Amino acid sequence: MPSGQSAARPQILVCNDDGIDARGIQGLARAMTAIGDVHVVAPMDEQSAVGHAITMRTPVRARRWPFGDSGFEVKSAHAVRGTPADCIKIAIDKLLPGMPDLVVSGINHGANTAVNVLYSGTVSAATEASILGIDAVAFSLCGYTRGADFGPAADVARSIVEKVVDVGLPRGILLNVNIPSAAADELQGALITRQARARWEEEFEERTDPFDEVYYWLSGRFVDMDGRSNTDLWAIDNGYVSITPMHHDLTANEAIASLAEIDWL
Amino acid sequence: MPSGQSAARPQILVCNDDGIDARGIQGLARAMTAIGDVHVVAPMDEQSAVGHAITMRTPVRARRWPFGDSGFEVKSAHAVRGTPADCIKIAIDKLLPGMPDLVVSGINHGANTAVNVLYSGTVSAATEASILGIDAVAFSLCGYTRGADFGPAADVARSIVEKVVDVGLPRGILLNVNIPSAAADELQGALITRQARARWEEEFEERTDPFDEVYYWLSGRFVDMDGRSNTDLWAIDNGYVSITPMHHDLTANEAIASLAEIDWL
Repeated sequence: MPSGQSAARPQILVCNDDGIDARGIQGLARAMTAIGDVHVVAPMDEQSAVGHAITMRTPVRARRWPFGDSGFEVKSAHAVRGTPADCIKIAIDKLLPGMPDLVVSGINHGANTAVNVLYSGTVSAATEASILGIDAVAFSLCGYTRGADFGPAADVARSIVEKVVDVGLPRGILLNVNIPSAAADELQGALITRQARARWEEEFEERTDPFDEVYYWLSGRFVDMDGRSNTDLWAIDNGYVSITPMHHDLTANEAIASLAEIDWL
Repeated sequence: MPSGQSAARPQILVCNDDGIDARGIQGLARAMTAIGDVHVVAPMDEQSAVGHAITMRTPVRARRWPFGDSGFEVKSAHAVRGTPADCIKIAIDKLLPGMPDLVVSGINHGANTAVNVLYSGTVSAATEASILGIDAVAFSLCGYTRGADFGPAADVARSIVEKVVDVGLPRGILLNVNIPSAAADELQGALITRQARARWEEEFEERTDPFDEVYYWLSGRFVDMDGRSNTDLWAIDNGYVSITPMHHDLTANEAIASLAEIDWL
């Protein structure tokens, strides 16, 4: 490596919601070492579906963690007792030597498309970074089998992050990337997409515990209500990597004018 | 009451994140009984800052709960071991006689403005309803004193919900309402606002436990980076009730064209 180049290497913070020992974050961290200096700060345990939760009523703990001992090296790794959003906050305030240039989250084991982004800890880590003004990308592999191969998805992540490092993201924008579970040569390319309009139709499963008390398991049916072809769901169904630009401002600007005409009080 | 009017009364589901025994939800439920039939489904314990978390790895429990015994009557009340989003899901699938016409959430004890809406369980209950196609409004009182008076805020909630029942909300839009902590005659009116651009600068407080292990309390400084006068923060600071229309589609449509020009893979 030419002298001086080392100093310019991007500082990359890697997080996830499946937990620091998940295979997806191993693959992502490994891919990122080709691009920059990698710092891993991720939950000690699985934190799926925690959304943008933060930990306020109990303390957060963090400790150094063995990571990347299988052929690649990260600059530092910490496991956190907390949510993905906690991880980003404490990484920046306490654990990292300085502000990272980029935050990547994942690779999540399972899709984060449509309305599911709201429940996703993986995406919330990237959102948290974006709030702090840091470029951020969330990656998810759209496959649920236990032995899923994260290799092709890690290659996709590397390619996308190289572009982000190169050109930067528009201010306040993060990328939510979903990758079909397929061999590299089966991928149709990448599409910039919109979050599909969809919802879950809940069907809680009712059971009775040994003490005769009823309890419920969340369960349901996912319903895609979107007929457009430029959605994240359409892209995945058709073999494309889906890249959805997202922001964290939830204001429905299009509704402001009509609502302002109502005499509310 | 004239005959027939009873059948047309709106079915109102009331939720919160401070817990079913919080004073804010008592005030809100009471105010709603003037408008429709009230069903309360709220967390058994405080669920602040859980964001849009849902409960997937443990069962959800729900049980009938004594509620509204101080001068008003609700049609049903259930306490749920789960998050606000869980409450909405299980209310609709299991606990309510039918689909509610309206979901109201709150009155939260503390503001849900700017980026804080992402962490808010109060708002997530309304968001969850909005995903399901139900009109929804989240209410927060911008005061933190233990003895805060929810009376004026409950009156504001009643007035706003009456309008929502009257005119309906645009499809996919929910309202996030923040109410200054002030006497009714001190309120300057209501403004339709935008979510302010702001962020938290974290300063985790480091402590050592009796076993010599370090732990951290989340703490920080809130920074308003928004100079506009039509934001939720501006409204509250100037004595107005802030009504922010929100949606749950996080797509940054404005970024799609420029990102589509990049060769990502």
